[in-house]
Amino acid sequence: MSDNSFFKLIKEDSTTNARLGELHTDHGIIPTPIFMPVGTQGTVKAVQQRELVEFDAKIILGNTYHLYLRPGMEVLNHFGGLHKFMNWDRPILTDSGGYQVFSLSPLRKLTREGAKFKSHIDGSSHIFTPENVVDIQRTIGSDIMMVLDECAPYPAERKYIEKSIDLSLHWAERARKHFLNTSPYYEHRQFQFGIGQGGVFEDYRKQYIEKMVEIGFDGYAIGGLSVGEPKELMHEMTAVSTELLPKDKPRYLMGVGMPQDILNSIEMGIDMFDCVIPTRNARNAQLFTTRGKINVRNLKHRFSDELIDEELSIYPGNTFTLGYLRHLFIADELLALQVASQHNIAFYLWLVRTAREKIADGTFRQWKTNFLNEFYPEK
Amino acid sequence: MSDNSFFKLIKEDSTTNARLGELHTDHGIIPTPIFMPVGTQGTVKAVQQRELVEFDAKIILGNTYHLYLRPGMEVLNHFGGLHKFMNWDRPILTDSGGYQVFSLSPLRKLTREGAKFKSHIDGSSHIFTPENVVDIQRTIGSDIMMVLDECAPYPAERKYIEKSIDLSLHWAERARKHFLNTSPYYEHRQFQFGIGQGGVFEDYRKQYIEKMVEIGFDGYAIGGLSVGEPKELMHEMTAVSTELLPKDKPRYLMGVGMPQDILNSIEMGIDMFDCVIPTRNARNAQLFTTRGKINVRNLKHRFSDELIDEELSIYPGNTFTLGYLRHLFIADELLALQVASQHNIAFYLWLVRTAREKIADGTFRQWKTNFLNEFYPEK
Repeated sequence: MSDNSFFKLIKEDSTTNARLGELHTDHGIIPTPIFMPVGTQGTVKAVQQRELVEFDAKIILGNTYHLYLRPGMEVLNHFGGLHKFMNWDRPILTDSGGYQVFSLSPLRKLTREGAKFKSHIDGSSHIFTPENVVDIQRTIGSDIMMVLDECAPYPAERKYIEKSIDLSLHWAERARKHFLNTSPYYEHRQFQFGIGQGGVFEDYRKQYIEKMVEIGFDGYAIGGLSVGEPKELMHEMTAVSTELLPKDKPRYLMGVGMPQDILNSIEMGIDMFDCVIPTRNARNAQLFTTRGKINVRNLKHRFSDELIDEELSIYPGNTFTLGYLRHLFIADELLALQVASQHNIAFYLWLVRTAREKIADGTFRQWKTNFLNEFYPEK
Repeated sequence: MSDNSFFKLIKEDSTTNARLGELHTDHGIIPTPIFMPVGTQGTVKAVQQRELVEFDAKIILGNTYHLYLRPGMEVLNHFGGLHKFMNWDRPILTDSGGYQVFSLSPLRKLTREGAKFKSHIDGSSHIFTPENVVDIQRTIGSDIMMVLDECAPYPAERKYIEKSIDLSLHWAERARKHFLNTSPYYEHRQFQFGIGQGGVFEDYRKQYIEKMVEIGFDGYAIGGLSVGEPKELMHEMTAVSTELLPKDKPRYLMGVGMPQDILNSIEMGIDMFDCVIPTRNARNAQLFTTRGKINVRNLKHRFSDELIDEELSIYPGNTFTLGYLRHLFIADELLALQVASQHNIAFYLWLVRTAREKIADGTFRQWKTNFLNEFYPEK
């Protein structure tokens, strides 16, 4: 069911393609542009749910592939969905599982019917079809679900992409049909996004988006990017896509990325982001701060009294010093992973919150340029 | 400097040897009996400092051996001590490092002078003497410091113990002398405890305590227990010790233990406890709750809607279900370690808080008996 009250476009920036909007879900309103922390298996790694609320996460992401295997559908069904299971009453978006089938499964086979794969945990055999992936996401109870697609690798030739988008579009049609013919299992509405593919070929990207818009989804994602292609190509494909996507629907750039990628993509008109970088890099001692990246294992921080991020003025960046956090990493303490993950999530949420403020007051372009030049320069 | 305002005995139980007291430090008043969460390397594993405050930890423990090696004295000196380094403004007690020299160092040698050892991290050579261990704890800035001693193994023959207590008493005299001849490095007072040794031999225990009391410390610990001896012997030695220890000084049973050991020792007149069990066992999925121990990995919890500990009515026990926590453990998520560690610390602090309330209202013996019989029966 397409629901017109789902997305509200609030403002378009006058000097860029950036936009302010709102996603209205039954678990709350999500202001856009937004970053969605990744909670793969029903937890954002090392960050507690109440901390996500403290850092003002408006929505988190769950991975259908992982949740389907563990805890599994029986458990999620018993608990009444992922929100209740993990004690999170704000919105959740789930991906379709397609990406993990390609990146994690030791053995997989694509057919017209769906994607057959073996579990990376125990080798058991499974199949994802456009239809059962909708059903699985109904059991999970995500507010926003994604359609099953093939996330083509990079590099891939035109011939490969041609076959791939033919299959993904066939799946998208079936997914939408099944979504419209079924109802949520719980008391809240669900929305469904299509995912634009097409590799790094402009004509395929355009062709795909046109057909997807014909089918008609509640929102549109740009998929198959940030998979190894040069940054320029990623930006090019993003720009091509946002030009064609309808203005009155939200746009989600999947799996992106670094702070500079996020701000540059907001400039092109992207509304939603998710990425494991803030938490994964945190576990490798890389901090993102308002004054740039910091590798906190570096010996130079041994005696550092500097706070992790005083300007952010939110826990834990306003509390612990680089010297203490370095010690925690060197001593292999769990608190290192906790503090670094918390901080990076808080920073990413600050980043999109600030972007929204700057779009609102008309200074986004200038702020973005200065901030990136000073603290996150392109190499 | 012995300070008479340090310990206040507030009440003695009428039907047991349990007692209520207060330790007055410059970082706050510690009600006794108390449990001290162990923060080995400047962090209580997987539990954040602000969470310790939330769970009402009145004092935590740091390990001199670990802190001396990492972050090291230069760093702690630069930061002005452990309190500032780790952002903890409540009291800290540090052990002498002796125990870790025996349990962790790959090579060590005891001489009259002190304990020579090699670092378990990089093999570098070090020596702990009664004097430099005082100095190290002055650099750490702990509110309560312990003297260097030999923690004799179990089993050990009378002959071994005889030599061992001769050395430890010699060290204790030197430690006290050095403590009295030196001053704190920071703005707060420090207190020094002696540690009673003597293996499992009543006469040696008594002899040791008499000499220790002659030397005169701010408090007395009972050491060398909970090192593998039968529980009856541990209780016997504890009872022997508390009979002889002065009533107007705090008594600390080192490294003990399970909930039943703590309540039984409170009954014998012990005031202070520390143990790694709540956090270490948490990381192995063992929960301590108001209704007994729970191994949360157990398959039977897969569909459990039961909260971890509703009766405790404190986060996270009042928030997450056993089913969710089991999933986190099975899926190898960091949040599992965080939630289980938090809960177990909260439970241990609840245990001693409740013991204090029961001593205050005169129902300690009855409550203890019922609680242990029902939820923590002796095997």
